[in-house]
Amino acid sequence: MTDTPAIENLKQALRRLPGVGPKSAQRMALHLLERDRDGAKQIAQALLYAIEHVSYCRRCNNFSETELCQLCGSSKRDRSLLCVVESPADFSSLEQTGAYSGLYFVLMGRLSPLDGIGPEELHLDRLEALLDESQIKEVILATNSTVEGEATAHYIGELVHARGILATRIAHGVPVGGELEYLDRNTVARAFSGRQEA
Amino acid sequence: MTDTPAIENLKQALRRLPGVGPKSAQRMALHLLERDRDGAKQIAQALLYAIEHVSYCRRCNNFSETELCQLCGSSKRDRSLLCVVESPADFSSLEQTGAYSGLYFVLMGRLSPLDGIGPEELHLDRLEALLDESQIKEVILATNSTVEGEATAHYIGELVHARGILATRIAHGVPVGGELEYLDRNTVARAFSGRQEA
Repeated sequence: MTDTPAIENLKQALRRLPGVGPKSAQRMALHLLERDRDGAKQIAQALLYAIEHVSYCRRCNNFSETELCQLCGSSKRDRSLLCVVESPADFSSLEQTGAYSGLYFVLMGRLSPLDGIGPEELHLDRLEALLDESQIKEVILATNSTVEGEATAHYIGELVHARGILATRIAHGVPVGGELEYLDRNTVARAFSGRQEA
Repeated sequence: MTDTPAIENLKQALRRLPGVGPKSAQRMALHLLERDRDGAKQIAQALLYAIEHVSYCRRCNNFSETELCQLCGSSKRDRSLLCVVESPADFSSLEQTGAYSGLYFVLMGRLSPLDGIGPEELHLDRLEALLDESQIKEVILATNSTVEGEATAHYIGELVHARGILATRIAHGVPVGGELEYLDRNTVARAFSGRQEA
């Protein structure tokens, strides 16, 4: 133990960031204390502000600082289209392509029985209520091309079919086993435009 | 802009961490908000605690939560040896080898006239006062093997010589252009034991 308790504690805390191991955590902690204490304060404040103010949109379940998110409240979006994605990162990937003008439902996860994640954990009851209430004509299943993502798409596809609504699945371009978040825009756009009936 | 202002702000803040670009910052921000809000709080609190409590030891200039750091206050260290390092990370590297039992002086930087870092910025007056006051018999110059590190070692070597004290420079094992922080313990230990008179 060559660090003070406060530095040791900071290094442990920074290791909770994804992709940060002991060496990176030490580098970050010492960098902030040596050269960027303003930055450290800024990060702390941004974290506290975000966890206090960022909640979930009651319609699409995406992150939102208001009860209804900006996109769900927009009059410019096509309300007959609903795109189901796993995470806010996947939502961002699709939005950045500019290829889609409808609304979203963000699962904040994927069906994964082994991890105890079933339909309740993904708020699929809210998705069903949305399908029952609104004038949705097509549901685009844009979950990842992993085993869990495919199973999730299949499960939701059944819910959609049962209501006589068209369910489509994004197709071309997504490498099998890959995740939307890491693809370039063109591949994501291609996968989007080449969607097939599920 | 597909994120809420608080998330956008958090992503910007996280980019102040060394080695974190836009993609990593997004991944970190969304991970914490989706799956680890406790972790986010823990990081924020650890940052705020550290910037409030971690200051500098008045003797060795290393990070300390007390006026005199634990190492400077220890009766087990050899007070005739003083090792000069650039940063707390370099200090940790040396301490982890277990090969050294003396005291330290941490520069918190290196001489770099182009960046406006001269003897005043490195608190070399405090180092000189230390050399004048105490019973130091040998000063080990353990700055990095970079151009600035070598220049800093040379400059401090002159200050030490002027007082008739032995100045030595760590030597073997440190690759030219490399930095202590990233070396394995054995290389650092070898560099330490193979030091030569400057």
